[in-house]
Amino acid sequence: MPVRLDARDPGFEAAFTTLLGGKRESAQDVNDTVAAILDDVRRRGDAAVLEYTARFDRLTLEPQGLRVSLGEIDTAVATVDPDVRDALALAADRIASFHGRQVPQGFSYTDQAGVRLGQRWTPVSAVGLYVPGGTAAYPSSVLMNAVPAKVAGVERVVMVVPTPGGVLNPLVLVAARMAGVDEIYRIGGAQAVGALAYGTATIAPVDKIVGPGNAYVAAAKRQVFGTVGIDMIAGPSEILVVADASNDPDWIAMDLLSQAEHDAAAQSILITDDEAFADAVERAVAIQLASLSRVDIASASWRDHGAVIVVGDLLADAPALVDRVAPEHLELAVTDPDALAERVKHAGAIFLGRHTPEAIGDYVAGPNHVLPTSRTARFSSGLGVLDFMKRTTLVGCSPGALGALGRAAVRLAQAEGLEAHGLSVATRLNIPRF
Amino acid sequence: MPVRLDARDPGFEAAFTTLLGGKRESAQDVNDTVAAILDDVRRRGDAAVLEYTARFDRLTLEPQGLRVSLGEIDTAVATVDPDVRDALALAADRIASFHGRQVPQGFSYTDQAGVRLGQRWTPVSAVGLYVPGGTAAYPSSVLMNAVPAKVAGVERVVMVVPTPGGVLNPLVLVAARMAGVDEIYRIGGAQAVGALAYGTATIAPVDKIVGPGNAYVAAAKRQVFGTVGIDMIAGPSEILVVADASNDPDWIAMDLLSQAEHDAAAQSILITDDEAFADAVERAVAIQLASLSRVDIASASWRDHGAVIVVGDLLADAPALVDRVAPEHLELAVTDPDALAERVKHAGAIFLGRHTPEAIGDYVAGPNHVLPTSRTARFSSGLGVLDFMKRTTLVGCSPGALGALGRAAVRLAQAEGLEAHGLSVATRLNIPRF
Repeated sequence: MPVRLDARDPGFEAAFTTLLGGKRESAQDVNDTVAAILDDVRRRGDAAVLEYTARFDRLTLEPQGLRVSLGEIDTAVATVDPDVRDALALAADRIASFHGRQVPQGFSYTDQAGVRLGQRWTPVSAVGLYVPGGTAAYPSSVLMNAVPAKVAGVERVVMVVPTPGGVLNPLVLVAARMAGVDEIYRIGGAQAVGALAYGTATIAPVDKIVGPGNAYVAAAKRQVFGTVGIDMIAGPSEILVVADASNDPDWIAMDLLSQAEHDAAAQSILITDDEAFADAVERAVAIQLASLSRVDIASASWRDHGAVIVVGDLLADAPALVDRVAPEHLELAVTDPDALAERVKHAGAIFLGRHTPEAIGDYVAGPNHVLPTSRTARFSSGLGVLDFMKRTTLVGCSPGALGALGRAAVRLAQAEGLEAHGLSVATRLNIPRF
Repeated sequence: MPVRLDARDPGFEAAFTTLLGGKRESAQDVNDTVAAILDDVRRRGDAAVLEYTARFDRLTLEPQGLRVSLGEIDTAVATVDPDVRDALALAADRIASFHGRQVPQGFSYTDQAGVRLGQRWTPVSAVGLYVPGGTAAYPSSVLMNAVPAKVAGVERVVMVVPTPGGVLNPLVLVAARMAGVDEIYRIGGAQAVGALAYGTATIAPVDKIVGPGNAYVAAAKRQVFGTVGIDMIAGPSEILVVADASNDPDWIAMDLLSQAEHDAAAQSILITDDEAFADAVERAVAIQLASLSRVDIASASWRDHGAVIVVGDLLADAPALVDRVAPEHLELAVTDPDALAERVKHAGAIFLGRHTPEAIGDYVAGPNHVLPTSRTARFSSGLGVLDFMKRTTLVGCSPGALGALGRAAVRLAQAEGLEAHGLSVATRLNIPRF
């Protein structure tokens, strides 16, 4: 049974704080193992990658077999159900369209002191995309990671995907082709992260690595951070649904379950202003749960991490609770979702109204489904075009502009005891040595 | 002596690669010590912070003495040389003005399928700013970290600064007041990072921690990452100067030395197209070096990490080398710096022309001086307003819009084996259970 809380109870604050503090991840300590693999890949390159692939993926390859050929991709495209291919194409188009609006503009201007100032955005040159193998090989994730990189202007997008026993989901290849992925290698685990970060004879190094993975992949990404950039390390998924009593309890129940089925560590929370509606949703969850193929996962998630919170007034009381949860996904199943959305500060993505189930955002809405989990929406954002670009600032002083600003710079350099800093300005202005 | 390379030599590629791969940091392993301190602060709060402050800063305090009072700040303001105060105020104004241009705009639109889509930017609610004590307590860094946070709209900016033996640089307090810092605590080290991340009875927790620090502070920031956001972990500073023979060798020498004086691990590189000019700069460095107060630091940096690279043609040959270095600071002391700047992809900040010494950007130009080091400009940016904000995406479907997109979402959910995802859409469309 999920936790049931009432915001009007005296014990609410303590119980809500406990809910927020609940650990949903068991950190597996794989750091030493990963460090050894990374070091080996850095020193021995392809040879090490091939050995680990043989050991962990039961796949014996030569260096020239690491890369997935164009022929293999053609074959995959041909085998895929045209309906699914069309759905993927629709998703790719809509993701590209939304992310196109995220492309930032630089600026440049000359200020009153005559200083030229500016800021310029440029894409990262090469990006590696980790795609998990097996059941977690989601073509939608390939699109969500690769399309924004290409929209940003990344020249070289390199995908790695482990193929345990040689098996590869053809939909992943189809999605990669649609997204414009440039190279695909059939490797995974820490060895793939190492190959992307350090490069091998076969695989040129990249500048940034993104994409989800297991504990080994996450640890490897943390360890190569600095040598390359990485995206966030995602925790288990979560949804917070704010719903009034006018909703169909079955709809809301299914929305809660759509997170719960991801992972036993996923979290689904309902905030409502109606006790009877809360009861109805809980009954609907219990009934629907039983018929799901992923019943074990969804049951464990709902039982261990689910929560139903009843408040006095949704518009007045929900936003503050939402901000403290800072949910990855926030669904506002109310009559005026915009009024509620305006009062919320911290959420990865907001789904407005009764006809916007969160799952629409997982696939085809257009915004990214890679979103901040575990309360990190307080300080971070979903994946987007900006994650594949970086800023360079520009300053240009004429002799006159340097004259206008120089003395202040010299003063501050003196105050900080950085003599050469001051002299580099003073010498150009013929200010005497200080 | 710095390394001298000639891009036209057959051995250049190997030597340049060695230069790029050179390690300038000796990673001190302080992780276990830091983990113990963080754990203690998390469990015991103020009591732990006070004990570590007594031990490491030789300062015995009561909880109510942790916070720097308004009276102390007033006193500091009164003691500071008005000239330096004016210079700081000029810097604060210019930093605020430049960063004001970085404030991003959200967007919202309804697409052809009738889906409402949008993206919204909101500030992080509370930010902690670490300021090192002693000689590294730079008021300019306080401005560069705190002003962008306030421009972003951060409500609560909390500064921590250790005061070994009770000593505090009044300029740091003046800068904090100018930048609009809301709270200042006289604590430092891992214990201060822990207090900001977890909160204590006296210090409410923040959502993100920024600012430079020693190895303990850097390790603490890494360890609390996830609980709070952090900025980049900066490495030693570096400059790459591209200069033709028309420059005054003394000016260029001082620019190289202004990085070298920061830290024995700092790196200064000159790229020029003229062997005789290269010789002249090296002679000028040797002469000027001797007269600097930080001669030991600057000499070690120039000797161990300095490099002079001669190329055939600056416009043709320099950009590719610059991109491989991806320097924190790039100074283009040439007649047409814009032409060269346009060909460069990777640099933290670019200084255009002979009258724009890098030091002007450290203090008063306006752009941020917290910049990506150690080749990380390939994938990351200097500190800015965006570091204190986060994006929320919004999606709203009408019944008709859900009808237009829903089947594709159901298809993809089926293909990925996520049944409840598909059902949350299908149930709203009366599509039969699949």
